[in-house]
Amino acid sequence: MSKETKAKSIIEPKVLKGFRDFLPSMEIPKKAISNKLETHFSSYGFVPIDTPVLEYTEVLLGKGGGETDKQIFHFNDNGGRDVALRFDLTVPFARFLAQHQQELALPFKRFHINKVWRGENPQKGRYREFTQCDFDIVGVDNAEADYEILSMMDSSFSVMGIDNYEFHIAHRGLFNAFLSHLGLLEESVEILRTVDKLRKIGEEEVLSQLQDITGDLQKAKAVLSYISKEDEQEGFLATLDRLSLLAGGETEHTNRMKTIYSYLCSAGIESHFTFDPSITRGLDYYTGIVYETFLTEIPHFGSVCSGGRYNDLASLYTKQQLPGVGSSIGLDRLLAALEELKSPIVSSASSSDVAIFNSDASLFATYDKVAREMRQQGLRVDVYLQNKKQTAQYKWAEMNAIPFAVLFTEDDLQSDTLTLKNLINRETYSSISIKEAIAYIKKDIH
Amino acid sequence: MSKETKAKSIIEPKVLKGFRDFLPSMEIPKKAISNKLETHFSSYGFVPIDTPVLEYTEVLLGKGGGETDKQIFHFNDNGGRDVALRFDLTVPFARFLAQHQQELALPFKRFHINKVWRGENPQKGRYREFTQCDFDIVGVDNAEADYEILSMMDSSFSVMGIDNYEFHIAHRGLFNAFLSHLGLLEESVEILRTVDKLRKIGEEEVLSQLQDITGDLQKAKAVLSYISKEDEQEGFLATLDRLSLLAGGETEHTNRMKTIYSYLCSAGIESHFTFDPSITRGLDYYTGIVYETFLTEIPHFGSVCSGGRYNDLASLYTKQQLPGVGSSIGLDRLLAALEELKSPIVSSASSSDVAIFNSDASLFATYDKVAREMRQQGLRVDVYLQNKKQTAQYKWAEMNAIPFAVLFTEDDLQSDTLTLKNLINRETYSSISIKEAIAYIKKDIH
Repeated sequence: MSKETKAKSIIEPKVLKGFRDFLPSMEIPKKAISNKLETHFSSYGFVPIDTPVLEYTEVLLGKGGGETDKQIFHFNDNGGRDVALRFDLTVPFARFLAQHQQELALPFKRFHINKVWRGENPQKGRYREFTQCDFDIVGVDNAEADYEILSMMDSSFSVMGIDNYEFHIAHRGLFNAFLSHLGLLEESVEILRTVDKLRKIGEEEVLSQLQDITGDLQKAKAVLSYISKEDEQEGFLATLDRLSLLAGGETEHTNRMKTIYSYLCSAGIESHFTFDPSITRGLDYYTGIVYETFLTEIPHFGSVCSGGRYNDLASLYTKQQLPGVGSSIGLDRLLAALEELKSPIVSSASSSDVAIFNSDASLFATYDKVAREMRQQGLRVDVYLQNKKQTAQYKWAEMNAIPFAVLFTEDDLQSDTLTLKNLINRETYSSISIKEAIAYIKKDIH
Repeated sequence: MSKETKAKSIIEPKVLKGFRDFLPSMEIPKKAISNKLETHFSSYGFVPIDTPVLEYTEVLLGKGGGETDKQIFHFNDNGGRDVALRFDLTVPFARFLAQHQQELALPFKRFHINKVWRGENPQKGRYREFTQCDFDIVGVDNAEADYEILSMMDSSFSVMGIDNYEFHIAHRGLFNAFLSHLGLLEESVEILRTVDKLRKIGEEEVLSQLQDITGDLQKAKAVLSYISKEDEQEGFLATLDRLSLLAGGETEHTNRMKTIYSYLCSAGIESHFTFDPSITRGLDYYTGIVYETFLTEIPHFGSVCSGGRYNDLASLYTKQQLPGVGSSIGLDRLLAALEELKSPIVSSASSSDVAIFNSDASLFATYDKVAREMRQQGLRVDVYLQNKKQTAQYKWAEMNAIPFAVLFTEDDLQSDTLTLKNLINRETYSSISIKEAIAYIKKDIH
């Protein structure tokens, strides 16, 4: 092949619209967060599962198809099967539960952190490929399970180093009791979809749509009044009492919420939770508590962790009723939020703790020996693999955000010492032992 | 909907042929291994990246398509684009390098652990969806980079708790020099494909095919002789000398191999490496060292970690030459191997370290308090969320392989103590403090 032909045949390196690469500066913090979450979920006895990326389209969409259909990546495989990329982790989990119920011990607590795909039009911050982090407790319908999910959500945010967050919680059962009391239960799905848009379209538009749905301005006003929190200072239990009254009196849902709240108080975390009747979640499979999570410094980011209780998740695939409660974190959105908050977890994407600079190719075995010893002590150590100009090596260390460099002077080689440079503040430690160097670095990075 | 209609509309919960779910008993060890590897790679200054699961088919296959085409999952998306699921992590990495070269500092050391898809016919142990673990050093072509990959491979196996492994290493440049010396360079691609099948089809069949390719029995015999290790006791350097002689004398490749070997000796790990001229790797992009890894107790598993040096990986997408050296571990196959070896990493898939049994629903806040304290001390703690029969709770703990249970007697509740049961050996520790319980458990699980 002539050079010219070769040049012409180069393919433009590009990714699909709505897809993206994760460079180390983003993938390092993404992994750090998901590792922290996984360790934390494990500390609650939650276990990881994984499911195929591709499934039968019918299994994912049900026989009807419907709304989601347009947004799904689906095609016929070589065997003529209609297959699709999963669009969430909830539906595959429901299928998984139905398929493996004999192999699982209930209550079953699982987490699943992985990618999902939707064909929706990409916008700022919205991608066609994104990572979800789901965690659920299945097989038990009580306040203890509801509380445990909330408790684990709360400690997860601490573990991620996020201080300012607030959980907005409501109860779908209570809302349904209220609609039933008004004689609007038949219209509940439409009403839910409408009130879920409150933050987006505002009170006036919601009222107008509710009037269209109910055909009754008084009822529309009553619904709007239920979902509005008139008094920001109203406490959790006061809101609960007021709503119960609107729903025609105390119900099992009122008691459930009271018990959950008592556990939150016992754990001393009740101040992170607010009763917010505007939270309804659009999806109609929720039956109990529902919640969203807002970062109080950047509320415009919307909810970064949402979910609730459902009491018949796997009904598409099995006659056995499997109640559950769960939650989902959009990991990419959370990462973007942490970036906006300038969280240390996002900004500290160094490739190593220390670089061993290369000033003499014949000394490579020495460099390697020092690197191995430092790695033994838990440091991340990068040996520069070529004898290039010092300026090139400094630049490379800077691009990789490596905070320390090791160099060897003639004296160092004679006396079995080394020279350590702090690349951030430019301090130099001359003629120190490898042990001293390790201690300096560890002290600095922790 | 009547009950009958509902029953009829149930969809069979199943996955596609060649795909599978990972239940906790497999996903826990899989995550444990990949976390260990990631931490280990990071200790060498390797950084994680991620790329989209879907890419333009032309980007993945080149303009020609060819052999891989039949095995690839590809389709037209909603926008009419010809898109495909990645079939390895090497091609997306090449595209990534070409696309982001301005943002990366060379040498660039990356790892990528994620799924790939191939439509090949599923066999025992072969799946259409599987997880690869790739690691490469790009931007430098020297013995130091070659050595570092080998060194990191070696320590990776130790980190995974595998003791009995052997790296079989050869040099593609030396083999090409040998073929050139015989006047067979033109047929090198066909010859490579043939000798790569030596383990599978045997010497006789390889000889016959080589004769067909070269049209010369003597040359076919010479090739077979080159790739055969006559003397199992022949040392690394003796093999190197013998092969150099067959290739017409010492070349730069001989020197490269000598330098690499000297570094392996300096690090004291040379006994894990054997020079095996039968290793050629079928793919024609390799230009330098090539290697495979065998578990000596189960050699029939084939290579669990393979790769080599390539000097123009991204040439499909850029005119800049990007030399590299890298390796790939088939994580699912490795897991299957570890299962066969009865490795502790695979067999210890417990969901928690300790379960807190539930004998009185009104005590839940106490259970939760003890659980929170134990989690603070680094234990994985599962509270049984319902007051069910003890036998049900024991069975659930057993199914989750939980080694300890905490119970509270009347005395315990009075005196702020607890009762700890070792569920493996049935020992009971009565009236102990929570601190003592934590100490017992930690001592046992470590």
